[in-house]
Amino acid sequence: MEFLTGVKEKEVVGIQEILDQDYVGKTVCMNGAVHNVRDMGEVAFVILRKAEGLVQCVFEEGKTEFNLKELKEESAVEVTGVVALEERAPHGFEIRLQTIRVLSEPAEGMPIAINKWKMNTSLETKLGLRPISLRNVRERAKFKVQEGIVRGFREFLSSQGFTEVHTPKIVSRGAEGGANVFKLNYFNKKAELGQSPQFYKQMMVGVFDRVFEVAPVFRAEKHNTTRHLNEYIGLDFEMGYIDSFEDVMAMETGFLKYTMELLNREYKKELDMLGIQLENIEKIPQVRFDKAKELVAEKYNRKIRNPFDLEPEEEVLIGRYFKEEYNSDFVFVTHYPSKKRPFYAMDDPADPRFTLSFDLLYKGLEITTGGQRIHDYNMILEKMAKRGMDPEDIKDYLMIFKYGMPPHGGLGIGLERLTMRLLDEQNVRETSLFPRDVTRLEP
Amino acid sequence: MEFLTGVKEKEVVGIQEILDQDYVGKTVCMNGAVHNVRDMGEVAFVILRKAEGLVQCVFEEGKTEFNLKELKEESAVEVTGVVALEERAPHGFEIRLQTIRVLSEPAEGMPIAINKWKMNTSLETKLGLRPISLRNVRERAKFKVQEGIVRGFREFLSSQGFTEVHTPKIVSRGAEGGANVFKLNYFNKKAELGQSPQFYKQMMVGVFDRVFEVAPVFRAEKHNTTRHLNEYIGLDFEMGYIDSFEDVMAMETGFLKYTMELLNREYKKELDMLGIQLENIEKIPQVRFDKAKELVAEKYNRKIRNPFDLEPEEEVLIGRYFKEEYNSDFVFVTHYPSKKRPFYAMDDPADPRFTLSFDLLYKGLEITTGGQRIHDYNMILEKMAKRGMDPEDIKDYLMIFKYGMPPHGGLGIGLERLTMRLLDEQNVRETSLFPRDVTRLEP
Repeated sequence: MEFLTGVKEKEVVGIQEILDQDYVGKTVCMNGAVHNVRDMGEVAFVILRKAEGLVQCVFEEGKTEFNLKELKEESAVEVTGVVALEERAPHGFEIRLQTIRVLSEPAEGMPIAINKWKMNTSLETKLGLRPISLRNVRERAKFKVQEGIVRGFREFLSSQGFTEVHTPKIVSRGAEGGANVFKLNYFNKKAELGQSPQFYKQMMVGVFDRVFEVAPVFRAEKHNTTRHLNEYIGLDFEMGYIDSFEDVMAMETGFLKYTMELLNREYKKELDMLGIQLENIEKIPQVRFDKAKELVAEKYNRKIRNPFDLEPEEEVLIGRYFKEEYNSDFVFVTHYPSKKRPFYAMDDPADPRFTLSFDLLYKGLEITTGGQRIHDYNMILEKMAKRGMDPEDIKDYLMIFKYGMPPHGGLGIGLERLTMRLLDEQNVRETSLFPRDVTRLEP
Repeated sequence: MEFLTGVKEKEVVGIQEILDQDYVGKTVCMNGAVHNVRDMGEVAFVILRKAEGLVQCVFEEGKTEFNLKELKEESAVEVTGVVALEERAPHGFEIRLQTIRVLSEPAEGMPIAINKWKMNTSLETKLGLRPISLRNVRERAKFKVQEGIVRGFREFLSSQGFTEVHTPKIVSRGAEGGANVFKLNYFNKKAELGQSPQFYKQMMVGVFDRVFEVAPVFRAEKHNTTRHLNEYIGLDFEMGYIDSFEDVMAMETGFLKYTMELLNREYKKELDMLGIQLENIEKIPQVRFDKAKELVAEKYNRKIRNPFDLEPEEEVLIGRYFKEEYNSDFVFVTHYPSKKRPFYAMDDPADPRFTLSFDLLYKGLEITTGGQRIHDYNMILEKMAKRGMDPEDIKDYLMIFKYGMPPHGGLGIGLERLTMRLLDEQNVRETSLFPRDVTRLEP
């Protein structure tokens, strides 16, 4: 009988191994994709692309056993050669090639120059060719940073006693209501795709006190803008036993501080590649919704048209105001009008026209919505009645209040928007691997 | 201007803080849900439920400033009291109550005894009341262990150079084909919910060499069995530059070893609560599909009815065989017949009726399907032609082969099934927070 005992030791080395150990002058075996071949006559540079980065290999006529003419870009290869120090090469070393073994070859040459530092193509073209355009090292670096953001979210919240949960994405029709839902037929029942894990994460607060989830959310919004996606990753958390909704903002501030430090520490290579300098966060200002409107109206000479909503342009101006006045890229805008928030939002006892809720703006874009939720059964029934909602439609959700819930609140962060702002991208599609928008269902 | 600077220091303590520091004799403040009140006359035990576990609080008439009659189970409270050592209490300490402050109260008493050690109710009842039945400490312990499994998956793969990705769940109609898909209307285009991230994770191998994803997958299968869910969490990975599909099995073995150790180290409390003794894994046997059929036919006196498929009963017997003969709960069954595997599976060059693929059985249940994939453009076109498939339908996927892909393979693990087997549960619904099956769309 044969047995598997765990990951096999391989002869091939990675970039980090060469950097960590004394490989100079030694023969190594390495695999990767042929990113680029620069033929200079007697010698040629064969650039290998690996997950970790690029490796310069030197092909020498007569010394490398291979016919260079036969080497195609985007072939998968395994090379052997001697490691040599070379300041001008990526990571400060190169491999002087002895052999090249082709593991796999493309059928055709690349339709776009993914091996250029910047791909000189439109977003449209990049997205159409996404399965291969992502191979460009700067394109993929964005998603490595995105991995870091998600890691920061999980690591920080875990350290704060949160439990990770997985809640269903197919939900019964009418769960949260609203027109912006994708509907589907679920074994002859009316179902829809979850617009947010809101109800489920609240249920889980009764179970684990503090929970978080990283999962897709679906919005059938017809907006086709630079900041809307119809499917995106929600970074959601919900926490019990809060004293006020400020606890939720404080937790998010903690997450952002932790994550900026993590990115600067462990994703520096990618940030540098993208030309991004991330400043650590010390503090984030908070301002009331109505106050924020006044501040920008005054400073930027602007009329307040609708006192109960923020226009995207106003968001931009609020972002600008807090950058100019407090040198902060972030600002918490609090106390949104009740009529603009869902029924489960806790109204401010001091003035029930407003809620104990907030948005976080990052460089003038809303990246988070959160707040304190109603935890009292009668209070939520009353608010539903005022809005003409039928408790029967969401009785499973209401169960948690009927049988007791602690004071709680939480938030949802749009991962792609946060990544977009962090990387100073102008279109949220740049920071979604395979974006879904009103016109785009493929690739 | 007010600012948020990060998580606020709170006066309340957690269980671990009391265990880690010298709190005996000191007055502390703690919050939690009133899990249970046992009134013994002069004194009463008030059991607090926190995410970390239960805490015994002692109410003494005349000493505790509160009217015990008014304390409802499932209220959220904040108590103050003096910490005292008490061997018979959970964690070895109790809190002698001075005050109880009610933060929130239920409107009604619990319809089921969630504060009993084992809830004496049917699965049907438990699932119907899931938002509150999960508050039972043994019920929730299952999902804490599930969190540990996911953590093990991420931590282990990250240590092996994998990048975490997030791929879309709304996909274009016909992506993988088959009848078992949920269909939806996506802005007047035909779309469906992803049955697996297969195509996308393969695309991402061309980008990051090794990738993983933890995300929901959707199967519109009409099976209503103890092991089927229509929405579940897929633990998927895909890795490039493999020498053979054994590399994939070796990686999974590594993940399982790592995770068993992690669970025994950091989730021992929950495993003990559930009466589960997890043995660390040393090695996992592998057996060919056809050989496995012969072995059980011989040992258990069973006729081989269909040489090209495994019946569930045969899976159970293969599990039993390897438990009896090799004392292994796990067995890799390899070389599944080509006609039973998807078109992208790599056929065995030695005998193309079979594939370089495997299932992993855990106590007789398939919990993983994986294998090597075709990486050559012409090979995949040929196989599609044989199956009457039109390349135009999946041209975005085929793009990666046309422009070059390394040899690669991967797998998908069903999280709920793995959790179910690990915890010796008999129904996969026990290990899904809010299961979705043919008849169940709520809660």
